[in-house]
Amino acid sequence: MATLYHHPLCPHSRFVRLLLGEFGVDAELIEERVFERRYDFLLLDPAGRTPVMVEESGQVLPGTGIIAEYFDETRSRTTTNQRLLPPDPAARVEVRRLMSWFHDKFFAEVSEPLITEKVYKRFMPQERGGGPLDMDVVRAARNNVRYHLRYIGFLVGKRKWLAGNEMSYADLAAAAHLSSVDYLGDVPWGEDEAAKDWYVRLKSRPSFRPLLADRTPGMAPSEIYAELDF
Amino acid sequence: MATLYHHPLCPHSRFVRLLLGEFGVDAELIEERVFERRYDFLLLDPAGRTPVMVEESGQVLPGTGIIAEYFDETRSRTTTNQRLLPPDPAARVEVRRLMSWFHDKFFAEVSEPLITEKVYKRFMPQERGGGPLDMDVVRAARNNVRYHLRYIGFLVGKRKWLAGNEMSYADLAAAAHLSSVDYLGDVPWGEDEAAKDWYVRLKSRPSFRPLLADRTPGMAPSEIYAELDF
Repeated sequence: MATLYHHPLCPHSRFVRLLLGEFGVDAELIEERVFERRYDFLLLDPAGRTPVMVEESGQVLPGTGIIAEYFDETRSRTTTNQRLLPPDPAARVEVRRLMSWFHDKFFAEVSEPLITEKVYKRFMPQERGGGPLDMDVVRAARNNVRYHLRYIGFLVGKRKWLAGNEMSYADLAAAAHLSSVDYLGDVPWGEDEAAKDWYVRLKSRPSFRPLLADRTPGMAPSEIYAELDF
Repeated sequence: MATLYHHPLCPHSRFVRLLLGEFGVDAELIEERVFERRYDFLLLDPAGRTPVMVEESGQVLPGTGIIAEYFDETRSRTTTNQRLLPPDPAARVEVRRLMSWFHDKFFAEVSEPLITEKVYKRFMPQERGGGPLDMDVVRAARNNVRYHLRYIGFLVGKRKWLAGNEMSYADLAAAAHLSSVDYLGDVPWGEDEAAKDWYVRLKSRPSFRPLLADRTPGMAPSEIYAELDF
């Protein structure tokens, strides 16, 4: 069986867990706290980030983008009718643009600061950045999430899914990041009805169920986190 | 003809300029100062980063990774004998891992802080982060570059090129970032002989010549910048 080194609230790890569900791949999940810089984990990927997947063959897949491209190259034709990364080069550009939008930009502006402040800083030793949360950072991130929600609403107002008329990696990336932030109760769903409707569609997929069952010790999710009707 | 929106010292833009040379693609270069947040540029790519390429067909390619994948999908079979992103999925993992190493990790630890401090901050308005350089940041980045050089030396001690026995996107990514830092005079080449030899091989390629001819107004390159024997 494959192994996925992940953190339950790491949005990039959540994206890969959604891929596992969509592609029907079984994997053992191992929780990794990257800030501990565990030697055996750094041997797998010296960059030391989650997620890292190890295939049953021993092939190491370090990082979100690499896992997504590898799944497309090795699994897309056998396990789904629909390509989550579509075959046409121009359509791939749009899916990859939005993957990067959420994995890089949304991460930098929203999910990374919120999760670092509210979750990781509790567990980090002080010399690696641990300590009390910085409310200025939290407020800025909470403000940023609003325009991302409106951008999602704008896109699904023109198309059925974020990158076009088929669901793609772009939707899974956006939903993975939002689900981490939603666990913390920081998504103002009232801000954009179209974005909320789109999220309900994703949240209802079987691939989403394992994420909705997550519980971080000492940190209950927001009340609506696992609700399909919120 | 295609158009490339770039900045002369932006290492991601330099990577794409190397691709243009390797693939034999002509493009008009337009200098973009992303911190000015020019409206027409944001219409091309709302993420607002360089590089952005616009194909003669009008197809917009926003960002380094997307350009590299698109070139592989649309140009690799017609313009080169050798695939800069090799066809085998496992080999692609290693090339993409090292692309990410330089485009993300080296950028965060070395090229981004050095270029921001030494170049961009001169041109940025103060409210967007402009002002005098912060020597602590410069010192930290100069220290970080040493272990990246040793990592390059380690890799080319095992293989002919960074990701294997053929030159790949990984080499062009690493060389693009190092060339920006080298312009500023901040690469301690004496640190690793094998890394230096590898860089000489890349620097000697015709695709590298346009980079070596770059001159930023008011900022001469380091003495050895354009020398093949340094």
